[in-house]
Amino acid sequence: MSCDKIITISRQYGSGGHEIGVALAKKLGIAFYDKELISLAAKESGIAPEVFEQADEKAANSLLYSLSVGLYNYGNGFSNTMGDLPVNDKLYILQHRIMKEKAEKECFVIVGRCADYILRNNPNVVKIFIYADMQSRMRRAVERLEIAPARAKQAVVKLDKTRANYYSFYSGQKWGQADNFDLCINTTQLSTEQSVDLITKYLEIIG
Amino acid sequence: MSCDKIITISRQYGSGGHEIGVALAKKLGIAFYDKELISLAAKESGIAPEVFEQADEKAANSLLYSLSVGLYNYGNGFSNTMGDLPVNDKLYILQHRIMKEKAEKECFVIVGRCADYILRNNPNVVKIFIYADMQSRMRRAVERLEIAPARAKQAVVKLDKTRANYYSFYSGQKWGQADNFDLCINTTQLSTEQSVDLITKYLEIIG
Repeated sequence: MSCDKIITISRQYGSGGHEIGVALAKKLGIAFYDKELISLAAKESGIAPEVFEQADEKAANSLLYSLSVGLYNYGNGFSNTMGDLPVNDKLYILQHRIMKEKAEKECFVIVGRCADYILRNNPNVVKIFIYADMQSRMRRAVERLEIAPARAKQAVVKLDKTRANYYSFYSGQKWGQADNFDLCINTTQLSTEQSVDLITKYLEIIG
Repeated sequence: MSCDKIITISRQYGSGGHEIGVALAKKLGIAFYDKELISLAAKESGIAPEVFEQADEKAANSLLYSLSVGLYNYGNGFSNTMGDLPVNDKLYILQHRIMKEKAEKECFVIVGRCADYILRNNPNVVKIFIYADMQSRMRRAVERLEIAPARAKQAVVKLDKTRANYYSFYSGQKWGQADNFDLCINTTQLSTEQSVDLITKYLEIIG
């Protein structure tokens, strides 16, 4: 099917949001971005991707500073104006810029990275939240992180908290609140394919 | 299509949840309950329906009392044991009982009334949350309540607050939190028919 939409996927840790994003982009024949934006940001800034990877989707504490010195002016020479900002802020600002630029030119699916907030005024954006119950997320954490089942809940809660802090810090909004999304899907009972089916049905409906 | 599910619809005021419930029940060929439960509760208790209507989906403040005196024992003579409980609690307890009984025997769509919480352990229950942006809910409030547009926001906020209090009071959970539902649909861009299409697709998928 063709698509003129940009689909942002926010997701609880272990809910399968990444896999759904990959499969949805494939089905729609459009680009997929998740950690891919780190490589692009690294390339643009000259900073090593490994440095950005450590900072990915983690909040810094200097946004007020970055706002106060006018770093949200996206004109020429932008990346040279970031000076001594923490790497988390640099990454956020670069991803913000890359996302905005891409949204002018192409359709894509993007996971995380405050994309629903950054692209909120774009009329082509469809905002989806993917979540699941704690038990199924714990199972996924055990597989993915190769940790003992006894440690799974702690890991899920911690990773969610990091994402929530990141989202709240940069957006000023509460993470995972239904109101901020067009569609919220509980994947506890759904396979990746079934979730993708439901999202494509939604895209068909809104036309 | 056939259906072996019970579908609970929680809804923000003015989001079209009631209309979606009616149309969904019709499409699935199953019963629909909303205020209908009041008549049933009135019939069972001998209390005038008008009295219950005033108390509908409003919290009382005596649940602890009703728990402490064992009113959650649903044996014979239940309705005679409610004594001097506030009418809100009587209505809640009767609706609770009627809902549980119906869920043993038939499929239905039910709107509001903490149904998602009351029936949470029933494996056939599908829990849906319907919401929309403030502007579209205000438009609906103006039409439905026949009030001036300037008063619409206040009315919507107040009615939501009443529902949230009711839900929190009887369930102990936060109202409208995505985690409590299987599917949350923002109806700002959707007609009633489109919302019903999406829900029936979801029901098809989960089988």
